[in-house]
Amino acid sequence: MGSSTLTIDLNAIVANWRSLDAMTECETAAVVKANSYGLGTPSVARVLAKAGVRTFFVAVAEEGAVLRAALGTGPTINVFSGHMVGDTTIIRDAELTPMINSVDQMLRQVEAMPAAPFGLQLDSGMNRLGMEPSEWSALRDIALAQNPTLIMSHLACADEPNHQMNAHQLRVFREMTDGLDVPRSLAATGGVLLGHEYHFDMTRPGIGLYGGLPFEAAQPVATIDLPVIQLREVGVGESVGYGNAWIAKRPSIVATVSAGYADGLIRAMGAGATVTFKGQILPVIGRVSMDLITVDVTDVNSDVDTLQLLGPHQTIDMLARHAGTIGYEILTSLGNRYTRAYIE
Amino acid sequence: MGSSTLTIDLNAIVANWRSLDAMTECETAAVVKANSYGLGTPSVARVLAKAGVRTFFVAVAEEGAVLRAALGTGPTINVFSGHMVGDTTIIRDAELTPMINSVDQMLRQVEAMPAAPFGLQLDSGMNRLGMEPSEWSALRDIALAQNPTLIMSHLACADEPNHQMNAHQLRVFREMTDGLDVPRSLAATGGVLLGHEYHFDMTRPGIGLYGGLPFEAAQPVATIDLPVIQLREVGVGESVGYGNAWIAKRPSIVATVSAGYADGLIRAMGAGATVTFKGQILPVIGRVSMDLITVDVTDVNSDVDTLQLLGPHQTIDMLARHAGTIGYEILTSLGNRYTRAYIE
Repeated sequence: MGSSTLTIDLNAIVANWRSLDAMTECETAAVVKANSYGLGTPSVARVLAKAGVRTFFVAVAEEGAVLRAALGTGPTINVFSGHMVGDTTIIRDAELTPMINSVDQMLRQVEAMPAAPFGLQLDSGMNRLGMEPSEWSALRDIALAQNPTLIMSHLACADEPNHQMNAHQLRVFREMTDGLDVPRSLAATGGVLLGHEYHFDMTRPGIGLYGGLPFEAAQPVATIDLPVIQLREVGVGESVGYGNAWIAKRPSIVATVSAGYADGLIRAMGAGATVTFKGQILPVIGRVSMDLITVDVTDVNSDVDTLQLLGPHQTIDMLARHAGTIGYEILTSLGNRYTRAYIE
Repeated sequence: MGSSTLTIDLNAIVANWRSLDAMTECETAAVVKANSYGLGTPSVARVLAKAGVRTFFVAVAEEGAVLRAALGTGPTINVFSGHMVGDTTIIRDAELTPMINSVDQMLRQVEAMPAAPFGLQLDSGMNRLGMEPSEWSALRDIALAQNPTLIMSHLACADEPNHQMNAHQLRVFREMTDGLDVPRSLAATGGVLLGHEYHFDMTRPGIGLYGGLPFEAAQPVATIDLPVIQLREVGVGESVGYGNAWIAKRPSIVATVSAGYADGLIRAMGAGATVTFKGQILPVIGRVSMDLITVDVTDVNSDVDTLQLLGPHQTIDMLARHAGTIGYEILTSLGNRYTRAYIE
């Protein structure tokens, strides 16, 4: 079997949601955009709904339709990108709640579907999504008269607890929303960890559910096991892989393993990344190919058939560091070629 | 509509295959592993089969089954990873031809499915897949008696025409195979460009079909158009995006665009990447988020609704350079969230 196995521990996702929920007094939603960070929206969202999640967030309306099909009617599905040109039918059919980002989107919403639920996204300083304070001043009374379900904003530096941007965004968000009789949300995973004043009426963790930093207490969720295609002896001075990137300094045994950058083993993942065989840590060597990596298994004293890439010895964030990126990108890059196994 | 659009020019893929085929006197196969380098195996493989491709290559047996379902009976489907543990049923049912990489695989093949077609992969120096010269010496007579359909090897440095490794691997491959009455294949895209002596009986281009280097004359295949969610004015000194990564040096207009690293806009793609609006080149600014990028559109004098990331102004290889990688990884990272449009 050439496919590697990606095992997703749904119990760990639920446990992470419960841990984050226990840190606050308010509702804890769940962010399941990008196919639940690459781990599979139908399975992930269903288990979260069963555990008590009543509100989900996706990036675009198309994802909302997939999620609605998985969940059925009932849970609220909020869309971060709001109501874009061409979204009306899908928002209506899938009963989505767009987070309105601009005056243009507000007009589109009330013209196309008056009385339908919507939320409001405000920009508190990240300058990425949401209405600017000046736009908000102009639109505020009209928008509030339409009974928005939520007012939200997003923090730019929440994974750096001491960054002054956090307090600044909190202050701006409060200035824009204090005294309004509408539920508010500011915190994703990082914001939950910043403390009570960031929680408002709803938090909306994403990466923390999936075992990633900045939620250090998260249970790991994803395990990846890679099948070995073949073993070979490599003599001193012989090279391995594209561009002759690795050269043997001792008589070596090299395993060729069936997974590569098409499976999210990011090509920048150079020296430093490891796999394990029965607990023994082994170095990935040479360049990552599209479908293959090579591993120095010289120090293993038995036949090597499967190697573990993600697991207790190496989290998504550790692997990410070897690739110069963050755990989020490891997850969303995993691709379609894995045999996915869900633990429930 | 929040989904970005990935347009795949199937005519360009066929034209690239014909151009590469015209450079040789032998059969030209097509490599369609990793879901045809991310562009969609059913559509890509069908149009190539219609254009005359009789032999396809995939990485693992599971991909072969998907390909067989798309193509029906007829074309040969070769599997680079050979006959791995657990592959027998799928090889038989999908009528795949494993490229046998080791003595273990050879035993597995002849025990499980005697008389079924197979090829042989030899290692000519890359030390990644295929039998070593010593293994080959031991197995050669037995293997040849089973009538292999192909003997192949793979070049480690074919994208560097002057690298001495090319001539070395050619010599080793010839030493291992000269005089045998079995079709031979050594060249992928890079090998086709190395000249006649590398062509043997079959070439098997991959990246060149999809518009990538080292095939400089390739027609571009993939176009990506990104919808703008909203525009905002950003004052001097204000920051944009995660970690306040970009700071406005002039009064600016910033477009927030619906695509991010979950869509293969690799997070390392920092300064340098651009998009276009009606031919005007505009810089991507700030950090790439999971679902969003931001673009400085200050210099555009009209409403910006859609921006082009891949197109005539920026090929997959140019984008790859901005992300510190190669065009191959840009393609295989594109993800599932695009609306895919095929030009045929």
